[in-house]
Amino acid sequence: MKLYDAGRAPNTRRTRIFLAEKGIVVPLVPVDLGKHEHQTDDFRRVNPRARVPALELDDGTIITESIAICRYFEEIQPEPPLFGVGPLGKAQVEMWQRRCELELMFAVAAVFRHTRKSMAAMEVPQVPEWAEANKPRVMEFLAFLDHRLSASTYISGEAFSVADITAFVSIEFMDWARLSVPADLLHLARWHALVAARPSSSA
Amino acid sequence: MKLYDAGRAPNTRRTRIFLAEKGIVVPLVPVDLGKHEHQTDDFRRVNPRARVPALELDDGTIITESIAICRYFEEIQPEPPLFGVGPLGKAQVEMWQRRCELELMFAVAAVFRHTRKSMAAMEVPQVPEWAEANKPRVMEFLAFLDHRLSASTYISGEAFSVADITAFVSIEFMDWARLSVPADLLHLARWHALVAARPSSSA
Repeated sequence: MKLYDAGRAPNTRRTRIFLAEKGIVVPLVPVDLGKHEHQTDDFRRVNPRARVPALELDDGTIITESIAICRYFEEIQPEPPLFGVGPLGKAQVEMWQRRCELELMFAVAAVFRHTRKSMAAMEVPQVPEWAEANKPRVMEFLAFLDHRLSASTYISGEAFSVADITAFVSIEFMDWARLSVPADLLHLARWHALVAARPSSSA
Repeated sequence: MKLYDAGRAPNTRRTRIFLAEKGIVVPLVPVDLGKHEHQTDDFRRVNPRARVPALELDDGTIITESIAICRYFEEIQPEPPLFGVGPLGKAQVEMWQRRCELELMFAVAAVFRHTRKSMAAMEVPQVPEWAEANKPRVMEFLAFLDHRLSASTYISGEAFSVADITAFVSIEFMDWARLSVPADLLHLARWHALVAARPSSSA
């Protein structure tokens, strides 16, 4: 088994944090996004969608999409559970994972991809107005998350989950997009310190 | 239990198709998006993110996000399995569900939301250039899906899954965005006819 990986990019990072939380070690194959290695014919044979991460099983089967890779490991090693426990717990983790992904990670990514010169060859065409439209969405969602975290230790409740991983890498990704978390979001700051203190956060 | 629902909108529709496939009947509470009922204070008490669908359990617990609602029902009634079977099967359905959602449904939605006058009050600001950027992405993904469907009956393999539901509602949603499926995608047409023939497709 091997995992095609790409450093600090949020989708590869959340997969590595997930594996670290599970205590699972998978050999990493670095893919240099800066050199467009993910867009080469060689890598397209791994993932025709030209994206990382991608997990290659010993029989050559490929699983792409970070959350699908995480779910594969959740199924083969359920402990500690990171996708929730029981029908309601699983649905709530999925709800919060999706909210954090669709409303935070993707909004931060839109700002990053449509404003940075370094992304001009990857995001074609760049639409600066779309980046601008996403900036207030990031801020509105962070305020919503702060409110949520006034009532629970972690995002989906009292247990750490994949929703926390998605939100954590998204917030760290804000630097790349030249966005900052407002200093008055104290519940979010409390939660961020708690997640950053986990050994997995350096994965 | 009740499901806040909104007619033909793709996220509510895929939830209803999922329930029809499971043979589960849940009372529907209509939310009129045209009248902005999802943005009222009353509805924000159900879902602070002002989106449908939302599932309300008998104890008042709310689950939002269509795929989270579907997963709840998958957990309480596993048959027929629509999120895959076994670690690899579940990961592959998740991979294909996400590909269809992120690369097709969201791209079609971007074209619809950023071009239609009827969406001007909901999508603020509308960015027509972002709609334009998504049109070729829709077409490229449909060609990829056509190629995939040359090798398997359904999108994730030989079993019908939530990935087929997402792709089906996304393709039907193309009409709203004034997009058409190219006539030469014969494998996609074969698959579309197969899915459209299922009783659930009218849900």
